[in-house]
Amino acid sequence: MQTIQDYQKVFISYLEDYSRPKDPENLYMPINYILQLGGKRLRPVLTLMTADIFDADYKKALDAALSVEIFHNFSLVHDDIMDDAPLRRGQQTVHEKWDLNTGILSGDAMLIMAYQLFENYEPKTFQDLAKLFSKTALEVCEGQQYDVDFETRDDVTIPEYLKMIEYKTAVLVGAAMKMGAIVANTTEENKENIYQFGRLLGIAFQLQDDYLDAFGDPKTFGKQVGGDIIENKKTYLYLKALEFLNADEKRRLEQLFSVQLEDNTEKIETVKQFFVESGSAKATQKAIEDYTNQAFEVLDRLTVSDDKKQVLKMFGQGLMTRKV
Amino acid sequence: MQTIQDYQKVFISYLEDYSRPKDPENLYMPINYILQLGGKRLRPVLTLMTADIFDADYKKALDAALSVEIFHNFSLVHDDIMDDAPLRRGQQTVHEKWDLNTGILSGDAMLIMAYQLFENYEPKTFQDLAKLFSKTALEVCEGQQYDVDFETRDDVTIPEYLKMIEYKTAVLVGAAMKMGAIVANTTEENKENIYQFGRLLGIAFQLQDDYLDAFGDPKTFGKQVGGDIIENKKTYLYLKALEFLNADEKRRLEQLFSVQLEDNTEKIETVKQFFVESGSAKATQKAIEDYTNQAFEVLDRLTVSDDKKQVLKMFGQGLMTRKV
Repeated sequence: MQTIQDYQKVFISYLEDYSRPKDPENLYMPINYILQLGGKRLRPVLTLMTADIFDADYKKALDAALSVEIFHNFSLVHDDIMDDAPLRRGQQTVHEKWDLNTGILSGDAMLIMAYQLFENYEPKTFQDLAKLFSKTALEVCEGQQYDVDFETRDDVTIPEYLKMIEYKTAVLVGAAMKMGAIVANTTEENKENIYQFGRLLGIAFQLQDDYLDAFGDPKTFGKQVGGDIIENKKTYLYLKALEFLNADEKRRLEQLFSVQLEDNTEKIETVKQFFVESGSAKATQKAIEDYTNQAFEVLDRLTVSDDKKQVLKMFGQGLMTRKV
Repeated sequence: MQTIQDYQKVFISYLEDYSRPKDPENLYMPINYILQLGGKRLRPVLTLMTADIFDADYKKALDAALSVEIFHNFSLVHDDIMDDAPLRRGQQTVHEKWDLNTGILSGDAMLIMAYQLFENYEPKTFQDLAKLFSKTALEVCEGQQYDVDFETRDDVTIPEYLKMIEYKTAVLVGAAMKMGAIVANTTEENKENIYQFGRLLGIAFQLQDDYLDAFGDPKTFGKQVGGDIIENKKTYLYLKALEFLNADEKRRLEQLFSVQLEDNTEKIETVKQFFVESGSAKATQKAIEDYTNQAFEVLDRLTVSDDKKQVLKMFGQGLMTRKV
């Protein structure tokens, strides 16, 4: 087995090789730009690691890993348009640096390029990868749509919220790992179990993101702490608080989430207090733990050595104890 | 062999069956809306017809035909955003009826759904279809990018223009037919030749579109006659005229194509006069004929009965003598 850093290094060099200038420039330059912006490369690393876990030469999974990363970046380009976001990883978003049309068209091309990366695999592997990819990509679109819909709804339930983050974030983590398993040609059970491991870890990861957005350390958390509160995002913390609060407190929290302020200092503090005192902060931590544990339980069912299970477990624990 | 109307009927009933309500509504309603707007269904009909020509049960090609139609409509949804078009087939465009974000996201979902339609084919057929689809779809994106780039360039050459319409329009016609050939599992030579037939006919079709936009009969031509002239579109007619005109006339035509007017009656008449008197109108008709004849020559190389070649030829002639 390699280290995470090894996978990252090999992946990044493969990506650089892929990102050569192509015509028409105005279509491909924005694609190379967003792909080179960096990020943790979490998803492609998971694809390579999973191929390795199931005893394949992990380099055989490089095309699948790159496909996942390109799809992820496609979704960032189009989501940034929809969210009107000026910055991504501290740099200008594609539609800001170029324009709306470039953002749309370059994103479209990326989605197609992601499929093309499966073409070097055998027909059966190709079909398995592309089917999983399509199912996942469509779920990501559905998750994004639910997210948009939730903005204007005030009756979002916890199960609905969980389904939204599952689709928008978690299924791609599961799929990234399952693709490694498909390339490694392991058993159907292993493929399904590693998918569930990734999916459950992905949900825990997103809940952790919600939690850190409110309670993360401003020194180490990459984004502005309280960003979700400022934007009145109905996260798990918020929905769980509504569930726990009495009618009067509930009204006050809902009122706080109906305004856009200039100075948010006081709002953030008050809302965080609601999150803590209602028990929602604790319940969120509990949910993160539960999903993580469920993910770890799935590991027992994999037919790989205990050492390899340990690698996956440590990776999961690393994700869950992150402060950023 | 069936008639065009038979293919259309079977296709439309298949499409209706496919377009069932799905959740999230805000993602799938716009998709069903655009798919039901109508149109000639030219591309899917070509897929079915080609499968039939190569002795397959043409109904086996229905999924491939639907994929082509969904891709075509995906490109309309995103192109309409980029062109800021309010109407499509006389009805509101998706981003007008809903909003920008809906247009982007529903379009994305359609691109994925187009790939999913290949999933019921055998792995080898699946791979062949998906590879052709990806190559074609990426070329369509490149063609769209060239089209956008040309708007702000004043040095577009005829070969560049031909490449643009080939990518933006013609390759999808070729691919639609080749998909029918792939499903029918005919020889590689037949697949390649039918692709070339469609591609060449597609170029002729688009040049015909340019021609009719200026010289079509207002009574039968679906769109506003002179639309390209009003929008200063650098079509084949325009580029060919620049080639033929003397320096002084060339300057005058370029000047006419640098302004946006309230009343375009006079501009349209003057420009059309330039097109006719420079010989560009004739040259365009000649080019349409040449591409059509090249397409017909390819037919000779197909290993199918003369009757079937005749069907394809008549279809091509029908397209080329259209007034709409």
